Amino acid sequence: MNPILFTRGVPPQESIPIEKLSICAREVISEHGVDVLQYAPSPGYLPLREYLSERKELTAERVLLGQGSLQILDMLIHCLLQPGDVVAVEQPTYDRVLTLMRRADLCIFPIDLRPDGLDLDQLETALVGGLKLRLMYVIADFQNPSGALMPLNQRQRLVSLSQQYRFQIVEDAPYRTLRYNGEDLPSIFDLSPATVIQLSSFSKLISPGLRVGYAVLPENLHSILSKYAEDTYINPSYLNQAIVLRFIQKGWFEGHITFLKDLYSHRLQMMLNALQSHLDRICTWTKPEGGFFVGLWLGNGHTLAEVWERSEAAGIRLTDGRGFFERGGESFIRLPFCALDEQDIHQGIQRLAALLDS
Amino acid sequence: MNPILFTRGVPPQESIPIEKLSICAREVISEHGVDVLQYAPSPGYLPLREYLSERKELTAERVLLGQGSLQILDMLIHCLLQPGDVVAVEQPTYDRVLTLMRRADLCIFPIDLRPDGLDLDQLETALVGGLKLRLMYVIADFQNPSGALMPLNQRQRLVSLSQQYRFQIVEDAPYRTLRYNGEDLPSIFDLSPATVIQLSSFSKLISPGLRVGYAVLPENLHSILSKYAEDTYINPSYLNQAIVLRFIQKGWFEGHITFLKDLYSHRLQMMLNALQSHLDRICTWTKPEGGFFVGLWLGNGHTLAEVWERSEAAGIRLTDGRGFFERGGESFIRLPFCALDEQDIHQGIQRLAALLDS
Repeated sequence: MNPILFTRGVPPQESIPIEKLSICAREVISEHGVDVLQYAPSPGYLPLREYLSERKELTAERVLLGQGSLQILDMLIHCLLQPGDVVAVEQPTYDRVLTLMRRADLCIFPIDLRPDGLDLDQLETALVGGLKLRLMYVIADFQNPSGALMPLNQRQRLVSLSQQYRFQIVEDAPYRTLRYNGEDLPSIFDLSPATVIQLSSFSKLISPGLRVGYAVLPENLHSILSKYAEDTYINPSYLNQAIVLRFIQKGWFEGHITFLKDLYSHRLQMMLNALQSHLDRICTWTKPEGGFFVGLWLGNGHTLAEVWERSEAAGIRLTDGRGFFERGGESFIRLPFCALDEQDIHQGIQRLAALLDS
Repeated sequence: MNPILFTRGVPPQESIPIEKLSICAREVISEHGVDVLQYAPSPGYLPLREYLSERKELTAERVLLGQGSLQILDMLIHCLLQPGDVVAVEQPTYDRVLTLMRRADLCIFPIDLRPDGLDLDQLETALVGGLKLRLMYVIADFQNPSGALMPLNQRQRLVSLSQQYRFQIVEDAPYRTLRYNGEDLPSIFDLSPATVIQLSSFSKLISPGLRVGYAVLPENLHSILSKYAEDTYINPSYLNQAIVLRFIQKGWFEGHITFLKDLYSHRLQMMLNALQSHLDRICTWTKPEGGFFVGLWLGNGHTLAEVWERSEAAGIRLTDGRGFFERGGESFIRLPFCALDEQDIHQGIQRLAALLDS
């Protein structure tokens, strides 16, 4: 029995607009050859920085393009923090970010995120008690791994806590564009554009392999980070960034987002239906309005260790949910739905239910 | 008077094979779309790793591709060294490497490199005296910034010192292919392929903007560095790496190297002729057999500070040679010749001579 893969949250192969990107690549090299093939300034391809900044009514001097947003976060950690500094994260959170933070010997303060929301009282109590928080990393829209959406009042409260207790908010927003129903909330960045750092990327919107991510930074940080980037890798590949911009300029981006939303919203609905059919009263899960993931909390005393051990034999493959936690995570499963077809989603959840039943 | 630029050592615009790269980009996306546009393993595009390893009669498991070789060096520093560790460099050396080492709080031990060669006695005396050296960074072929070629006996001596005193050699070889006359010496890597780390890149051979660099690593380090790379940026852009391989597979690489050698060797000869005509008995300089740079040491008590101050008015722009030195450098000037045409080289050296005369 081939296992059904509830593992990495990657876009499906069929979501990547290969032929259109091939045309963009040929054109940008032919038309802008030297501009995209020579050494260049470290903040990235200016026309794409201008496009991104105009949409946010900012100057391009606020935008730094990099080779994926993860590396930008790593550079931010090096520029802003010292070993031992305290950083807060939602728990669960993106596992690669925990890895980066541990590697930098940061002290991680996890804030519980459950199907009913993030426990900001935990954070405020600690701050009132004297916690010297330097930075909080947060994914407000369709969080990885839980799919959770942070309500507006929580976003506002977080911003005011950051101002009162003077810590840096880093908002990661790679899934924000992929909303399948409901209305956009203001991003945390929108609530305080002069102080919040927003990260995002085109990995989930066009192609992960292009490695085009970006940060919108407070002005004083932009020059610091640009210098750090130049000292690290001279400049990112402008070719990839120019391909992204050409894809947008050809008018293909909006249609592509519509295509992705159609594809993924259907798969999300199938996932939620399957969970409702097979796991109601056994587990709790988020009901995402966008993104790549549903977060599932096991009920009835089931633990991940027990499920994990028997999952391969049951015909499903799971990510170890504990990777998303600083502490605990024994009852959490991340369920990515974008790269699975209807049948796999249905059968996969059926197999998971059978495993929990047995 | 427009200044003649003896500044950055970048390939000239006319050296970049724009139309051929445009064809390569279109083809690799069309033919290998998902392979180059999806997330992928961190060591880089396997077919290019295989190509590079076969030429060295190694397995592909020894090769790691990255976004330029500088970033690979930064990762090596993070993986192998702690703040306070001692690293040796030629003095002068590549300025960006000094920046990386200082940023990592390493203790830099500079070994004097003069027109008559590297003073390895300095290094051996210090090692005998108890210097705890962890790593030496060296550019044996057509060094940046001096153009120097390390003689075979020095390469051998360095390898045997590294074995006796157990320090890691990192050989950077971006210019090695660009030999304009004379015969190849074995690289330091060739002398001890199981222990030496060799860095190189396609920045000087095809295009800097593609950001395709690589390391050949001892087996035990490859997995450590691959993990560090994955944790930092997930994977480098395979698109750029596939473009490089396609350029090679189409048979265009060898012809392109011949073209570059013709172009650059002529410019080198013009540079050496101009120096001989205008600065004989005033300065000393290297007589490179390849690469991008001639290193010039000012004579007659001239200092860089004095030259620098008047250079713009004299119609030349110079790199601050002190950037290539851990200590000193007051009499050194790096003269890049690849991106200047015959007239600029002649006129630039004439202006430098006039400045030194006045």
